[in-house]
Amino acid sequence: MFVETGQAEQRERGRSDPAPPARSWADDVRHRVRAQVEETVRLRCAEHVHSMHGSGFVSGVLTDFVARGKYLRSMFGYLGWRSAAPDSPAALNAVAGLELLHAFALLQDDVMDGSLLRRGRPTVHVQLAQWHRGQRLSGCPDRFGESGAVLLGDLCLVWAEQAMRESGLGRTVLERGWPRYDAMRSELAVGQFADLLNDARRVPPLDEVMDVLRRKSGNYTVRRPLELGAAMAGADDDLLDLLGDYGTMVGEAFQMRDDVLGVFGTDATGKPTGDDLAERKATSLVVLARELAGPATRRELDALLYGSDAVDGPVDVPAARALIDFTGARRRLDELITTRVHGALRLVDGAVADGRLADDVAGVLRAMAVRCADRIT
Amino acid sequence: MFVETGQAEQRERGRSDPAPPARSWADDVRHRVRAQVEETVRLRCAEHVHSMHGSGFVSGVLTDFVARGKYLRSMFGYLGWRSAAPDSPAALNAVAGLELLHAFALLQDDVMDGSLLRRGRPTVHVQLAQWHRGQRLSGCPDRFGESGAVLLGDLCLVWAEQAMRESGLGRTVLERGWPRYDAMRSELAVGQFADLLNDARRVPPLDEVMDVLRRKSGNYTVRRPLELGAAMAGADDDLLDLLGDYGTMVGEAFQMRDDVLGVFGTDATGKPTGDDLAERKATSLVVLARELAGPATRRELDALLYGSDAVDGPVDVPAARALIDFTGARRRLDELITTRVHGALRLVDGAVADGRLADDVAGVLRAMAVRCADRIT
Repeated sequence: MFVETGQAEQRERGRSDPAPPARSWADDVRHRVRAQVEETVRLRCAEHVHSMHGSGFVSGVLTDFVARGKYLRSMFGYLGWRSAAPDSPAALNAVAGLELLHAFALLQDDVMDGSLLRRGRPTVHVQLAQWHRGQRLSGCPDRFGESGAVLLGDLCLVWAEQAMRESGLGRTVLERGWPRYDAMRSELAVGQFADLLNDARRVPPLDEVMDVLRRKSGNYTVRRPLELGAAMAGADDDLLDLLGDYGTMVGEAFQMRDDVLGVFGTDATGKPTGDDLAERKATSLVVLARELAGPATRRELDALLYGSDAVDGPVDVPAARALIDFTGARRRLDELITTRVHGALRLVDGAVADGRLADDVAGVLRAMAVRCADRIT
Repeated sequence: MFVETGQAEQRERGRSDPAPPARSWADDVRHRVRAQVEETVRLRCAEHVHSMHGSGFVSGVLTDFVARGKYLRSMFGYLGWRSAAPDSPAALNAVAGLELLHAFALLQDDVMDGSLLRRGRPTVHVQLAQWHRGQRLSGCPDRFGESGAVLLGDLCLVWAEQAMRESGLGRTVLERGWPRYDAMRSELAVGQFADLLNDARRVPPLDEVMDVLRRKSGNYTVRRPLELGAAMAGADDDLLDLLGDYGTMVGEAFQMRDDVLGVFGTDATGKPTGDDLAERKATSLVVLARELAGPATRRELDALLYGSDAVDGPVDVPAARALIDFTGARRRLDELITTRVHGALRLVDGAVADGRLADDVAGVLRAMAVRCADRIT
């Protein structure tokens, strides 16, 4: 059901308004954001990293990493802006910084989760460890890779904030943004901390998982960027509420889809990955499966995921996947995702009908809602 | 030779000017900075961490951590400010943020270095791991501790920048500070990255070690904070150059003393620690020892520190310490430290004589130079 631009989706919903081609508008924004982010990383690396041994390698890894993003957060940030103000290169610079903030989060999360792949490549800490080995340096390559990736994440966090401040947006505009920006940054780190705790506590209640999910992915991927852009553009409370509600629904759908893909998703070769199961992650899917399961199935699932003692042997991923499917949790989560996307689309339609949202912005908001819920790319 | 306030040091140098009591001025700044930093951490934790499991513990660890600093960087920042402007609570708020920036650096460096003690307590990642064990959570306690400490470091990095921006300083004043602040933050992370590489490459040339030393500790502990404060206060280029030169000298002395203490320092019980040797750190002391050593001694030292293969067995610390002492590197480093401190004191005296520095600021600059070079506390 994935559509890039909302046009197919509009067809599906029986609409035929002759809105300007959303594809080119959204693609243009993505293109400009990507150029801006790559340029920022190149400049900052030239400024700060140049004199270090391995500087060329490090700059290359980081530039490649930011170039391969999906640019969801900057798109939502710019959609927020465009919901209340006309096109602005300065606003685009500011929201481009959100991609650096996201790079910070991914670089460090991947270290903490011990992830091996990201954006179709080995994760940055793995690449750094490989480079360390290739250079025949002393010390532990893995340790070096992890520390190096954390530090590159730190640099992205710093450069993200600089990108906002040096975007060219006026003082008043920025001052409307900073409280939201700061809240988002803290929420992001606290969300990851809570995520570690959730994993560590094995099986937290569903509402706690949903809370982390909202704070970590939902808010930070969709709602906060939208609100940030809209607030900087001077949106009124009514519009902020609308975008906030849309953001909550689409953000939750986004994270729930992520949880489904973490168990039932396939890699580039079509092989199911089951990463979340191998890592024993307490995701919405796993917690929901436990809540829907009968006592016997739950015992079996717990035995597979947590064993009879604390020693972490490998998880029988296919068996656990089959059990989860059997509980109906996947189907139930698909329903919950659909409910949220439909709710978001209804909100957008209502806002277009009463003139609160322009057609071009609405078209991209619809497309992004579907895209987040489907995650084909 | 350590003096807290510069008064004893002024006596020693035969001065008897009736300047206002430097002790109370500097102590008052430290006291206000500490109160400000503790309050910031408490407020931010209440704002962002409150709803998380273990929030009370986490807030407590972080508040205790920032309360136990030496407040060198904020003091240098405020000295920079006071060299060109009168007392200002807003400037004090801004430089207090430097302590949060320092907390960020320490929290993450300690993870990367695997350090066990900091500020007279187990390091934060160790405390988090202990808490994890005590709570009988699942997963690896050490891994949890490391990830948690990195995330608390991230929060400190974010809150540090917020402290600058929300200090109450005017827009023009802040705009004079941001370029230096941003450069300092990037330099800090890049310096730590270069440090990892130096360790990994075993025995880098002395000038490379000194470069890291300048960028990481020298610049960031003394020079950059001084320049930041002075630039925000509107200091002219002449004064900025003076403080920059002072900062370079005192900063290098600070890091060299750190390197001496890392091998010959003693812990609270008077026992020598030799941490840098156990960790095989390529410090200025070790690199200097290798350069001063004859071929036989150098071979012996290399065999002790790096062994015949890459496998890291424990280092014979007392033997390595004795060999380093034998090369005369410790004496030579002491001389280099003394040269730098005397140079810094001469600069201050000259600036007082021609009216570029006021007596009260000069008194604290002198005391801080001696304090950084001695590091008794």
